[in-house]
Amino acid sequence: MTKQIGRQTLRLFYPPTIAASAAVVGQKEGKGPLKHYFDYISSDAYFGEGSWEKAESAMLRKCFEMCCNKNGIAPQELDLIFSGDLLNQCVGSAFALRDVGVPYFGLYGACSTMGVAMMLGAMAIDGGFAEKVCAATSSHFCSSERQYRFPLEYGGQRTPTAQWTVTGAGAVIIQSSGSGPFITYLTPGKIVDAGITDANNMGSAMAPAAYETLRAHFEDTGRDPSYYDMIATGDLGAIGHDTVEDLFRRDGVKLGNFYTDCGVLIFDRQKQDVHAGGSGCGCSASVFSSLIMRGFSEGKWSKVLFAPTGALLSPTSTQQGESIPGVCHAIAIEKVIPN
Amino acid sequence: MTKQIGRQTLRLFYPPTIAASAAVVGQKEGKGPLKHYFDYISSDAYFGEGSWEKAESAMLRKCFEMCCNKNGIAPQELDLIFSGDLLNQCVGSAFALRDVGVPYFGLYGACSTMGVAMMLGAMAIDGGFAEKVCAATSSHFCSSERQYRFPLEYGGQRTPTAQWTVTGAGAVIIQSSGSGPFITYLTPGKIVDAGITDANNMGSAMAPAAYETLRAHFEDTGRDPSYYDMIATGDLGAIGHDTVEDLFRRDGVKLGNFYTDCGVLIFDRQKQDVHAGGSGCGCSASVFSSLIMRGFSEGKWSKVLFAPTGALLSPTSTQQGESIPGVCHAIAIEKVIPN
Repeated sequence: MTKQIGRQTLRLFYPPTIAASAAVVGQKEGKGPLKHYFDYISSDAYFGEGSWEKAESAMLRKCFEMCCNKNGIAPQELDLIFSGDLLNQCVGSAFALRDVGVPYFGLYGACSTMGVAMMLGAMAIDGGFAEKVCAATSSHFCSSERQYRFPLEYGGQRTPTAQWTVTGAGAVIIQSSGSGPFITYLTPGKIVDAGITDANNMGSAMAPAAYETLRAHFEDTGRDPSYYDMIATGDLGAIGHDTVEDLFRRDGVKLGNFYTDCGVLIFDRQKQDVHAGGSGCGCSASVFSSLIMRGFSEGKWSKVLFAPTGALLSPTSTQQGESIPGVCHAIAIEKVIPN
Repeated sequence: MTKQIGRQTLRLFYPPTIAASAAVVGQKEGKGPLKHYFDYISSDAYFGEGSWEKAESAMLRKCFEMCCNKNGIAPQELDLIFSGDLLNQCVGSAFALRDVGVPYFGLYGACSTMGVAMMLGAMAIDGGFAEKVCAATSSHFCSSERQYRFPLEYGGQRTPTAQWTVTGAGAVIIQSSGSGPFITYLTPGKIVDAGITDANNMGSAMAPAAYETLRAHFEDTGRDPSYYDMIATGDLGAIGHDTVEDLFRRDGVKLGNFYTDCGVLIFDRQKQDVHAGGSGCGCSASVFSSLIMRGFSEGKWSKVLFAPTGALLSPTSTQQGESIPGVCHAIAIEKVIPN
């Protein structure tokens, strides 16, 4: 028996439990289809702070503390923290968590950051390096817009393929002991660059990476997509979601209607003017930490493949004419540890 | 027996070997005191590319390939890659490694990134998730200057406490089997913010984090600083280095002249006009991958504590009046596995 399954998948020998989760979001997200699942909806986009960047840190901090509370621990009782965000130099996370007093691993996986954090956290626990870790991330529409695109005041027109960066944070506590849901398999993603250069069409840029990671996961584990009650990619939005379905269809594989995407779930695209759907680290993180975790406790599903996706570009790389590398990390979460 | 020692240190049960390393640097670094240790010195700051950012990616790619060559493997034979850099959204690494076809974990630890990468890589191997991983990072003076400070053309005056961002990349291959040097202990760092707000004095901002991590390491392992033949912090430069010595002196602990700093080692501060010394992810990474690894093979030292430091700020956080959170990750590397 080995932990390395096939070329790309890792089997956890001592599957850790996701013991608690919290999701904090902004007003727009709080008016969407998942409004009853979030732990806290802020009516103040500034979260009581004086800048968008400080607002993002305050939101993540609030989410982190709520998650610790739900787990019944003080933040400093954690062994390790894994976190990152979209802001330049990942200051959203660093400033949110600077006074916690717990060893800190900074990560950057763009919108796939929750996947990177949960994966490395689960590996740290399964490997015997920690008993209890936190994986957390955030994004904020206003800090992202001015950093990646235009100042809000400019009022730039958005293309039909564009996605709306979620104002939201998600956090989970993963621990060595517990009654599940358990993290059972990890399929860390390779970078896939399909040559897409339109920075307003992230769904298309990331879809090939999602396809490659999911395909590797099914191949390595021998599982059929229908093994899962839900397969949720990160934030591909409607266009990326359909592209993934299409890529599998060419292989003769039908993903079925249990295949969804966090960027599709979080907003009502008809009514909320978000074009192709939600995006941002906080999108998949807050959807996982609310809807998906709640579904486990309510018995709605017992096997979920959570696959956050990220576009590893920067405004500078786009200005220099580079294409957009994508990445997708898939995590199998199951109510019962399989044999 | 447990892998968690004290509050903050991790003991590797199956200490992995650092099997190969490579360092690629620019012209200025190639004229410094370590010129005979680097694997490749480029006379072209653009590394054959058309922008500073693409130059940084090309440099890291070259370094990564040289490291794989020295290990006698093809890049795609690696199980996992851990990488990150200073550029916004870490595009230096993502673009350098986008076509390698190996699962990729993006990291952000500012100048401590080599520490984060080596640590998570070692944990992945000790935990049984990989046989062979690469940890790699880079920085480039020109891409950093225009991103963090001023466009080069502006010719801004630098303060005496400022450090010079190293144009350099470092990469190591860590594997489960081998004859050492072995990674034996890890002390991942907590974020420490001592309230320093001067972004031109990173050494002072990061020194308290280095002190806290080193202190925890000595306390957790029961080792005296003199256990090591060399203690090398990340890039504190001369001011930060002296501050760490000073903080230990107050505790009655003498670090001794085996305590050094990668930012002090890489340049000749008298002749190379670098003020307080070198900095940037590529500084500690290239010094480790050249001088420190060579010293192991030549028998100059057999026990090294490598402790890269990072300042988790952004230009935006500085403009908003925030202080500078620091972090330091310490890794014990030994020629022989201790009992």
